[in-house]
Amino acid sequence: MHRTAVKKVVLEGVLDANDALAQSNRQVFDEAGNYVVNMMSSPGAGKTALLEKTLEQLRGKLRLGILEGDVQTTLDADRLARFHVPLVQVNTDSGFGGECHLDANMVRFGLSELPLPEIETLIIENVGNLVCPAEFKVGEDTRVMVYSVTEGEEKPLKYPLMFRSADLVLVNKVDLLQHLDFDLEQFLGNLDAVNPGVERILTSAKTGKGVEEWCEWLRQRRPVRQ
Amino acid sequence: MHRTAVKKVVLEGVLDANDALAQSNRQVFDEAGNYVVNMMSSPGAGKTALLEKTLEQLRGKLRLGILEGDVQTTLDADRLARFHVPLVQVNTDSGFGGECHLDANMVRFGLSELPLPEIETLIIENVGNLVCPAEFKVGEDTRVMVYSVTEGEEKPLKYPLMFRSADLVLVNKVDLLQHLDFDLEQFLGNLDAVNPGVERILTSAKTGKGVEEWCEWLRQRRPVRQ
Repeated sequence: MHRTAVKKVVLEGVLDANDALAQSNRQVFDEAGNYVVNMMSSPGAGKTALLEKTLEQLRGKLRLGILEGDVQTTLDADRLARFHVPLVQVNTDSGFGGECHLDANMVRFGLSELPLPEIETLIIENVGNLVCPAEFKVGEDTRVMVYSVTEGEEKPLKYPLMFRSADLVLVNKVDLLQHLDFDLEQFLGNLDAVNPGVERILTSAKTGKGVEEWCEWLRQRRPVRQ
Repeated sequence: MHRTAVKKVVLEGVLDANDALAQSNRQVFDEAGNYVVNMMSSPGAGKTALLEKTLEQLRGKLRLGILEGDVQTTLDADRLARFHVPLVQVNTDSGFGGECHLDANMVRFGLSELPLPEIETLIIENVGNLVCPAEFKVGEDTRVMVYSVTEGEEKPLKYPLMFRSADLVLVNKVDLLQHLDFDLEQFLGNLDAVNPGVERILTSAKTGKGVEEWCEWLRQRRPVRQ
């Protein structure tokens, strides 16, 4: 497995460079007084729909900003534009075959387009992918994972890295539970097996369930400013 | 964007090495007389559930073999073991943070554990990921993508590479359509925008819809042997 070994060394080099850039982003956030959420999930887990509800709910209560990451298109940013919050889209397709995650440099690139001092909490919506985004810090304070109950109970065991690195798991699309063979207790047991006691909120962007609790979670972490 | 450029060069080198190994796998398949399907999807799109139905339906009609790719665990292989077909599990976690795809070398590693001459059609169930697996050939004859209607209409536009490289798209979990705000026509239009006229079958592992048509698709591609 020579190739794998070589690749590992190379990628560790890349990660070191990424960590340095993540720290530099962190300084920028600290100076502007931002609390930064790195939001990650599989494709289609419902990040954007949850953000729509979040922006609705927190209008006038928390000054949010959004950095949207996608391989291609501005579809998600277009959906959120109607809320008139500071918003920037970063497309990852200039890289190799469309990068499958945001890294610190891509985020840095997007930050220059945002009025950071006007923002209290910046939410970074990462590229939909259950593996790679977890490997790249971008300077965030916290990692929030959105998990759709349509994805099955066993995924925390099969893709432990992202579940392990999350500070909060939004268990989403619970309105569909009645139509699925999804054992919620088993899923939460698997989640605790890889990240014991991690905070979790059951949510549905469709019915609004859990959105208030999630927004309260965000408000409690609002940055303190002089 | 110096780092990205460097990374691109490195990954192109990796891809060249991968292509050479994919060709070597291809020779092994040709000698054994295998037709090989590379099955790809997001996590939780229902690949394993569809394979359960497939193995049930094709028992005694097509000699199938399975190569299972996962970051960790043998959960999917365990689910399929009851069908008593040749089956091997390849875990990708020895690499960097758990590789997010199968590459040709990992597949080669797994092949040595399979009785290839006894197999007509080998199905490779790739790691759940909508970006990276599409970049790595493994020596397959065809690429089949499983897409769950819970993932939304716009994903072909946002993640075009995998949709573009698919020879067949199984549009799965259609039993849930009635509970979702999913516009099937819009999705199929987006699919045709990136891969015009690509074959597609609407499927549900739960109700069995489309499984017969998918199995017939596989049988028509059964390898011709002397």
